Amino acid sequence: MRQATHRLAISTRGKGLTEFTRAVCAWVDAQSMETGLLTLWCAHTSASLAVTENASPEVLEDIAEAFERLVPEDRGQAGGQRYIHSLEGPDDMPSHIRTLLTGPQLTVPVVEGRLALGTWQGIFLFEHRSRPHRREVVLHLMGE
Amino acid sequence: MRQATHRLAISTRGKGLTEFTRAVCAWVDAQSMETGLLTLWCAHTSASLAVTENASPEVLEDIAEAFERLVPEDRGQAGGQRYIHSLEGPDDMPSHIRTLLTGPQLTVPVVEGRLALGTWQGIFLFEHRSRPHRREVVLHLMGE
Amino acid sequence: MRQATHRLAISTRGKGLTEFTRAVCAWVDAQSMETGLLTLWCAHTSASLAVTENASPEVLEDIAEAFERLVPEDRGQAGGQRYIHSLEGPDDMPSHIRTLLTGPQLTVPVVEGRLALGTWQGIFLFEHRSRPHRREVVLHLMGE
Repeated sequence: MRQATHRLAISTRGKGLTEFTRAVCAWVDAQSMETGLLTLWCAHTSASLAVTENASPEVLEDIAEAFERLVPEDRGQAGGQRYIHSLEGPDDMPSHIRTLLTGPQLTVPVVEGRLALGTWQGIFLFEHRSRPHRREVVLHLMGE
Repeated sequence: MRQATHRLAISTRGKGLTEFTRAVCAWVDAQSMETGLLTLWCAHTSASLAVTENASPEVLEDIAEAFERLVPEDRGQAGGQRYIHSLEGPDDMPSHIRTLLTGPQLTVPVVEGRLALGTWQGIFLFEHRSRPHRREVVLHLMGE
Repeated sequence: MRQATHRLAISTRGKGLTEFTRAVCAWVDAQSMETGLLTLWCAHTSASLAVTENASPEVLEDIAEAFERLVPEDRGQAGGQRYIHSLEGPDDMPSHIRTLLTGPQLTVPVVEGRLALGTWQGIFLFEHRSRPHRREVVLHLMGE
């Protein structure tokens, strides 16, 4: 049984989902493990990890739009009441809440030499801030 | 330290929560590990995993109803505007979003030979599509 | 490769986020692992785990308020319709749903002797019941 770690840098173009399944699979493949456990950790409070369908770009648009309505920048109230914490911009506080709803972490089994992702499952970084950011995802693999 | 993997097939009857705690515990018990880490992975983009109270069926009804309101099929807008991605039916896109909100994965410690579930915690598959499906959950156990 | 487990008791003062990053880090440090994987499990169905910014108390207030609106006690309907499962009080059913949305578990890599938390990431217990509770979080660490 052994372990390996890695850091992936992911550049985002502002709000939305950026797939990085290939980079993850390439690193896992290079570790040559037959059975194991991969953990991804997004080291930020305004970007998160998500697994969703990677076949249709429309799905990603609908997801982004759904989060605008679930956690609106104007708090969804008549008159557009602000969050208390608003000094970092109107997109900051919703980004913390959206991160809470999707989460900073994923743990995926490695079975028969490959990640146990389903046919349509892709791994995405979900950027919640309006401006582009450089995000860091820590990878940890344990197995044999 | 050793590892074991397994695949559970879970048949759903359309939208709602299906408990499968017993099948998980039975498999974990059969591996005879004193201390370890169990990971469950739901290999789908329109069904997810959930941990919630398993004592009252009413709780499960209220949860299902809450998700209909949180992520409505008609997007919750006046006039019932559609999602962009709607060719697979009105329940498809909400199912991806509901899956994002609950997640494809759970990792549970094994302590003193049993899963660290609390008294009222059950493990459920949360089906988000309207029609019945056969879902697959990958189990990975590591420990000794 | 070795494992260690621990149980942390966290007292809450009713609804809201209680940070316990320090207690987690102290225990992890005491295990002296260079590389590993930490899992936290919240053994309850009406309290959950969350990672968010730990610099501003205002952020925590806005998060708590956002969850009151996302999953309202009166179900957000005109006339304040009740949940079916209401015999344990109006805060009980929303607490199960809020727990589903945030989750009972976190798994964090240990890299170069410390948790891979980002600069602003703190680990919180998110209490969803109105009254104070004593909550239990199981810690499991595996590594070397």
